[in-house]
Amino acid sequence: MEIDHLLSTTRAVRRKLDLDRPVEPAVLEECLNLALQAPTPGNVQAWRWLVVRDQGVKDRLGVLFREVGEAYLAGKADADPRALASGRHLIDVIERVPVFVIPVLAGRPAGDNSTDAAFYGGIFPAVWNFQLALRSRGLGSTLTTYHLAREAEAAEILGIPEGFTQAGLLPVAYTTVPDFKPASRVPLAEVAYLDSWGTPLS
Amino acid sequence: MEIDHLLSTTRAVRRKLDLDRPVEPAVLEECLNLALQAPTPGNVQAWRWLVVRDQGVKDRLGVLFREVGEAYLAGKADADPRALASGRHLIDVIERVPVFVIPVLAGRPAGDNSTDAAFYGGIFPAVWNFQLALRSRGLGSTLTTYHLAREAEAAEILGIPEGFTQAGLLPVAYTTVPDFKPASRVPLAEVAYLDSWGTPLS
Repeated sequence: MEIDHLLSTTRAVRRKLDLDRPVEPAVLEECLNLALQAPTPGNVQAWRWLVVRDQGVKDRLGVLFREVGEAYLAGKADADPRALASGRHLIDVIERVPVFVIPVLAGRPAGDNSTDAAFYGGIFPAVWNFQLALRSRGLGSTLTTYHLAREAEAAEILGIPEGFTQAGLLPVAYTTVPDFKPASRVPLAEVAYLDSWGTPLS
Repeated sequence: MEIDHLLSTTRAVRRKLDLDRPVEPAVLEECLNLALQAPTPGNVQAWRWLVVRDQGVKDRLGVLFREVGEAYLAGKADADPRALASGRHLIDVIERVPVFVIPVLAGRPAGDNSTDAAFYGGIFPAVWNFQLALRSRGLGSTLTTYHLAREAEAAEILGIPEGFTQAGLLPVAYTTVPDFKPASRVPLAEVAYLDSWGTPLS
């Protein structure tokens, strides 16, 4: 795969996750090892990665995911119907996704952008590297944050100690289609400025 | 370039930034367009991208960057000497880096992980896509957050309105070497667990 194609077609995959095809431990470890190659501010590598395959654990996390997700979607009734259907589908099948990956950070956010940008900037590049590595191997995922509204309950289910922060939950599976397309986006000319706010980039 | 090589060798580049080679607007726009292809939670695309080329603006931001960065490094005297020297170098030359890119988010973090993970998760995948796109074209960068300790002053310099959040500052340049190596990392076996905290992945 060409690099620009990879970078432009790694979608948030929900409806095209293959619920019936197992995910081999080896391919997941390859992708996690690539995740770890992302830099972290100050090279802290303050991460842990929880891989959930046990059906009982997925079921318990799935309850949190569904309850928060349903409330979220109920408040989004005016959103794009396609996006709603995609989110709805994932909520419906969440426990059947073969693997969940939960990235965890040592520490808690301070509630101040000057430190929290580095805190979250120490995990999401690695998460995205992981998602790109999955994509290059025919798997897909999406960064979800529903269950964080009940983070303490999830921490209890998973045995995560106090003082660690869950950054999301990635349902991981092979995808049911071989390829994806670039997404429609608000054009760069509308969101990028040169030297000062509002000045067109070109 | 092979995809695994890209994902494993996109380093935080500080000492190997080419301060004398201009960065063409076209290559920067290609990389920013690839940044925009990253997904955002709820597809909010709540981003703006400030590209700074003007020497006067870089000088003013450079003062903030240097003052905060020097104080930070002074408190890290026991850190790895190589990492310190690399950070020191970037502080010394910051204004001479050809381009700064400042990713900006609409809104402010709420100080609660259940919403802030999605907030920052809406920019750092795109930032990392940008850095990977740079790397694939022979350029480098590093996500810095020093200047956020003086975010309001930077917002005034750049004309960023109230209610927007700067997520960092990326100094962008061609790199002085053609290739990079994978980094040494705490091994996956020490940071990944299966189904429950502390259970080895394999």
